[in-house]
Amino acid sequence: MKALVAVDWGTSSLRVARIGEDGTVLEERGNPRGILTVPAGGFPQVLDETCGDWLRQAPGELCLVSGMAGSRQGWVEAPYCACPAGFGEIGAHLQWIDARTAIVPGLSCEHDGVPDVLRGEEVQVFGAMSLLDQTEGLFVLPGTHSKWVRVEGGRVQSFSTWMSGEFYALLRQHSILARTLPAEDGPLDEDAFRQGLAQAAGSGSLLRAAFSARTLSLFDRMPAAGMPSYLSGLVIGEELRAQPRAASPVTVIGSATLAQRYASALTWQGTASRCLGAEATWRGLWRIARGVQA
Amino acid sequence: MKALVAVDWGTSSLRVARIGEDGTVLEERGNPRGILTVPAGGFPQVLDETCGDWLRQAPGELCLVSGMAGSRQGWVEAPYCACPAGFGEIGAHLQWIDARTAIVPGLSCEHDGVPDVLRGEEVQVFGAMSLLDQTEGLFVLPGTHSKWVRVEGGRVQSFSTWMSGEFYALLRQHSILARTLPAEDGPLDEDAFRQGLAQAAGSGSLLRAAFSARTLSLFDRMPAAGMPSYLSGLVIGEELRAQPRAASPVTVIGSATLAQRYASALTWQGTASRCLGAEATWRGLWRIARGVQA
Repeated sequence: MKALVAVDWGTSSLRVARIGEDGTVLEERGNPRGILTVPAGGFPQVLDETCGDWLRQAPGELCLVSGMAGSRQGWVEAPYCACPAGFGEIGAHLQWIDARTAIVPGLSCEHDGVPDVLRGEEVQVFGAMSLLDQTEGLFVLPGTHSKWVRVEGGRVQSFSTWMSGEFYALLRQHSILARTLPAEDGPLDEDAFRQGLAQAAGSGSLLRAAFSARTLSLFDRMPAAGMPSYLSGLVIGEELRAQPRAASPVTVIGSATLAQRYASALTWQGTASRCLGAEATWRGLWRIARGVQA
Repeated sequence: MKALVAVDWGTSSLRVARIGEDGTVLEERGNPRGILTVPAGGFPQVLDETCGDWLRQAPGELCLVSGMAGSRQGWVEAPYCACPAGFGEIGAHLQWIDARTAIVPGLSCEHDGVPDVLRGEEVQVFGAMSLLDQTEGLFVLPGTHSKWVRVEGGRVQSFSTWMSGEFYALLRQHSILARTLPAEDGPLDEDAFRQGLAQAAGSGSLLRAAFSARTLSLFDRMPAAGMPSYLSGLVIGEELRAQPRAASPVTVIGSATLAQRYASALTWQGTASRCLGAEATWRGLWRIARGVQA
């Protein structure tokens, strides 16, 4: 295959990379123009501003776009590809914009008559599978809406969405707990974080566990500086509590800080894990491109 | 005993009642002067404005105050009475302001090293026990922070706090779900409410179930008008999911609308229930007063 222009276009930022035939990232750039800042019809121009030189330099190179650029509010809507989905299904469901540019579709699945969706994370999971040469396992992508993804036989079989990052922000900023929390999160307090994990594991529901952050403050049982870490432990602990316990190591994909925090929570729970970062996205797009051009 | 001036002084409102020797409510009045509107030192004056005529008319009558008036931000702080607590313990822990006026303390208990507290609900539970002649059972007081209270041998043994009303408001107003919900809640959509209960029961955590409100909207599987009821079902269903299943009927104490909604959720779950309203507060204060004056 030829080189690839890889585009990761999310809600709040745009990242691009030029990737060589062998998967090496040759150059990488960022642009704060997430899709929410781009007016309808403005996507080609923003992409051109970001990496038009690469595109003109090598007009035959494929350009693959993942992330919210494929949503209804994005560049062109790329309908979700239904699970189970592997490289073959994703390749067949690319949404072509022109002869060289395609949007990678998100995935959908269904549990008890209720749909679930993801968009962008599928590329990271495919990248992790390729980097780790792994065709089975559980992947977690923490964030505003965390995704837990189950892969079997090299295909995503199902996944679920957990509004953990958003719940943390809601409780942190808008709930009664905000009154006794310091203005800034500060560095992670490991002890307070683990206390939160333990409380979540024993409480059976965040609806109940959350109030402990209030009473520990009222009774001066925990310093205010530890409270954000405790709350983070409560929320991540709730996410772990409600997962079936994984037998083999869980792969955590995300920014170093957040992935490390999940890995630490998994370790506390007795579950092995390994972490991957942004390299998973570029590898995933490269691997999908290889399938298309093979 | 003589008649009683009963005062239910909460965060956002003040209610008073004159109660006869036999427990009959002779007269009732309301005042929007919740404790948050009263400056430090201003409590005697606001009480005098609300029912000074009763107090002057019969200077020997007891005046019992329950609710947040006994909190750190209230009239006089009444330290929490530790569980187990029955009429005897509450009577012994009254916080006397003068020879005739006392504040009823809230309750505290501890689970796994974490304290829990309530203030005001104890009077409702004692009232319900007296009205139903009940010395055992499970009581639920739904609200911003729902309380589940276990009574054995005529004493509150333990309780737990669930931030259900607050989580509903956070999700309703500040989360991504707010984008697809109508501006007003409208009347309860029973079907959507039950769908929410079922989803909560199967999801294992509200962190996960909440996202279904998003995807059902995205996939046009539920009309926007039903969404607030669905979300209410998700939150109340989460509260029920995480409770040990009650063998005997649960007593729901609260405003008619909310108590009815919880009763309906309990029925859906297969748990029997009965509802009580404001009468529980007046009865509870009367019963506590009877113990003091006996």
